[in-house]
Amino acid sequence: MRKFIVGVMGAGEDAEEGAKEMAFRLGGLIAREGWVVLSGGRQAGVMEEVNRGAKQIAGSLTVGILPTAQAAVSDYVDVVITTDMGNARNNLNVLSSDVVVACGTGGAGTVSEIALAIKAKKPVILLGTDRDSKAFFQRIGKAAVHTADHPEGVIARIKTIKG
Amino acid sequence: MRKFIVGVMGAGEDAEEGAKEMAFRLGGLIAREGWVVLSGGRQAGVMEEVNRGAKQIAGSLTVGILPTAQAAVSDYVDVVITTDMGNARNNLNVLSSDVVVACGTGGAGTVSEIALAIKAKKPVILLGTDRDSKAFFQRIGKAAVHTADHPEGVIARIKTIKG
Amino acid sequence: MRKFIVGVMGAGEDAEEGAKEMAFRLGGLIAREGWVVLSGGRQAGVMEEVNRGAKQIAGSLTVGILPTAQAAVSDYVDVVITTDMGNARNNLNVLSSDVVVACGTGGAGTVSEIALAIKAKKPVILLGTDRDSKAFFQRIGKAAVHTADHPEGVIARIKTIKG
Amino acid sequence: MRKFIVGVMGAGEDAEEGAKEMAFRLGGLIAREGWVVLSGGRQAGVMEEVNRGAKQIAGSLTVGILPTAQAAVSDYVDVVITTDMGNARNNLNVLSSDVVVACGTGGAGTVSEIALAIKAKKPVILLGTDRDSKAFFQRIGKAAVHTADHPEGVIARIKTIKG
Repeated sequence: MRKFIVGVMGAGEDAEEGAKEMAFRLGGLIAREGWVVLSGGRQAGVMEEVNRGAKQIAGSLTVGILPTAQAAVSDYVDVVITTDMGNARNNLNVLSSDVVVACGTGGAGTVSEIALAIKAKKPVILLGTDRDSKAFFQRIGKAAVHTADHPEGVIARIKTIKG
Repeated sequence: MRKFIVGVMGAGEDAEEGAKEMAFRLGGLIAREGWVVLSGGRQAGVMEEVNRGAKQIAGSLTVGILPTAQAAVSDYVDVVITTDMGNARNNLNVLSSDVVVACGTGGAGTVSEIALAIKAKKPVILLGTDRDSKAFFQRIGKAAVHTADHPEGVIARIKTIKG
Repeated sequence: MRKFIVGVMGAGEDAEEGAKEMAFRLGGLIAREGWVVLSGGRQAGVMEEVNRGAKQIAGSLTVGILPTAQAAVSDYVDVVITTDMGNARNNLNVLSSDVVVACGTGGAGTVSEIALAIKAKKPVILLGTDRDSKAFFQRIGKAAVHTADHPEGVIARIKTIKG
Repeated sequence: MRKFIVGVMGAGEDAEEGAKEMAFRLGGLIAREGWVVLSGGRQAGVMEEVNRGAKQIAGSLTVGILPTAQAAVSDYVDVVITTDMGNARNNLNVLSSDVVVACGTGGAGTVSEIALAIKAKKPVILLGTDRDSKAFFQRIGKAAVHTADHPEGVIARIKTIKG
C-alpha cells in the first residue's frame, strides 16, 4: 500500500517568482502520477505553491512536515506532521522522501536538505538551480545529483530513477 | 484540506491478543469516520493491527512514523514517515495527532507516549487499560485523560471531544 | 577520559519544596564523587537546584540539555546543549545518562523520562516518589527500577550499579 | 558559569591529512583559551583529531554529540551526549556552539552543518576550505561566513567575533 513520495524543498518567504511558478506546476504533475507531495508544509513560497498545485488534481495527497506547532500551515496540506524540532526536521523531510527535488536556488535551509539527502544516499534533482550551485552539489553528491530545467524534466527523471 | 488525525499507540511484539483485536476493530472504525490513522508504523502488535483494520475500508488513509529506516514497516501503511530518531519520535507521534488513543496496557514506549501527550495538552483516551494504570494517568493528566472499554466507546468519546 | 554521567530529572515550575531540597543535596553529592550532573538545564525547580547544589563543589561539572533556544538557562549549568526539539529532547537526556534519577513525583515530563529510560534499558532510581508511582514503574521496568528515600541512598545505589 | 563553546565540524573517515593536522592544532588552541571543544564525537577524522589536540592541554573540556549509541566514540571526549537521531543531530551541533568552525572541505555532513549554522544565524569560520566552497557559502551566508587559512587565524577571528 506504501505510496511513492516526492519531497519538494525550496525557499519560504524568500522564494523567487520563478521558483514558485515551477513549484505550482510540479505539484500538479507529481499528483497526476499518483505520487505523494511531501514538503516543509508552511504557508509560504515553494511549500505553499507545490501543495496548491497538487490540490488542483482530484485524488492528490499532500504531506507537510512542520518545524513547529506554531508555524502557519499551508491550506493545501492534507496530512500535517508536527515535529516541534525546528530545522532538525529537515533530515526527516529527506529520509521520508523517495526522491528529493530542490526547486529554485533556495537558501540555507534548502542547502541543508540537499546535503542531508546526499548524506542519506537519496536521489536529488535540482530544478532551476543556478550554475554555481549545481557544480557545487554535483562535486559533493556525484551521480546521485541530477538536474532539470523545467517540471516536466523532473517527472521524466524520476521515472528513470524508479526504473 | 487538513485531515483529522487519530494517533493509536500500543505495544509491538509484546502486545496481548485482546489489545490486537481491539486495535483491528478500532482501525476500521476510525477509517469509516474519514479520519486518518497515525501510528508508530511497525509491522508488529497494535501498530500492525490498527493499520490492517483501517485498510479494510475503502478510501482509508494510514500514516506510520517509523523510529528507524531499518524498522520493518506494516504492509498496511500508506504514508511512511522515516525519522531515524528512535524513541524521540514518540513525541512526533503525539504532536501530530489530534487525539491520542492508547490501546491495551502497553509497555514503556506507550507509557512515554501517554505522558508526552499529557505534556503536550492533547486529549488522551485509554482503551482497555488496567485499573492501576488508569488511576496513575488520571492523577497526572486529570480531565485530559479519558477511558473507554471498547473501540466504539473511543469513537463516541472522540466525537464529544471534537464537539 | 569519558566521564560518568548521572541524569537528574524532575519538575520545573511545579516542583515541591521537598523535591527541590533533595535535588540541591543530590547535586552536591554527585559532584563530590567526580560524576557529571546532567539535567534539562532550565532555571526552575529540580533542574535549577541540582545544578546549584553541584556548583557548590570545586571542580564540579554540570550539563544542561535545553528544550528550546528561548528557555531560561540555570546560572549553574557549565555546558549548555541546545536542542530546539521540545520534549523530544527528553530521550536525549536519558540516552546520555549512565544512570537516571527521578527526583520527587514529577509531572508528565518526568514520567516520560522514566518510561524512556526503561525503554532504553538504563538503570532508574526513584528518589522520594510516592508509593503508587513506585508500584507503577516497578511493574513496567522490573529490576531496572530502584528506589531511594534520600540523596545518600541514591549515591549508594549508583555505586552498587557501577559495580 | 556557562562556558563558551566552539563547534568544530569536518569529515570522519574521509578526512584529508591536512584537515586532520589542522584539527589537532585547533583543538589545542581552543582548549588553551579555556573554551569548550564540541564535535560530532566519533573516533574518526577531524572529530578524533580536534579532541585529541584539546586533551593535550590540562583542564581542557571536550563534548561529543553522537549520532547513535552504537557509534565508536573518540577516546578524547570527556562528555558524551548520545542522541540516537542520526544526522538530525547535526542541527544540535550547531545550535549548541557559540561559533561553528568547518575544518577542511568536508563532505555532505559538513555542508549540512554549515548550512544549518547559517540558518541559525551562528557565526561560521571556514578553515582551509577550497575556493569554490568558500564562494558558495559566502553567497548564502554573507557576513556571517568568515574564512581562515590556519588554526591561529580561527582563534583571532573568534576573538573579534566575541568582541
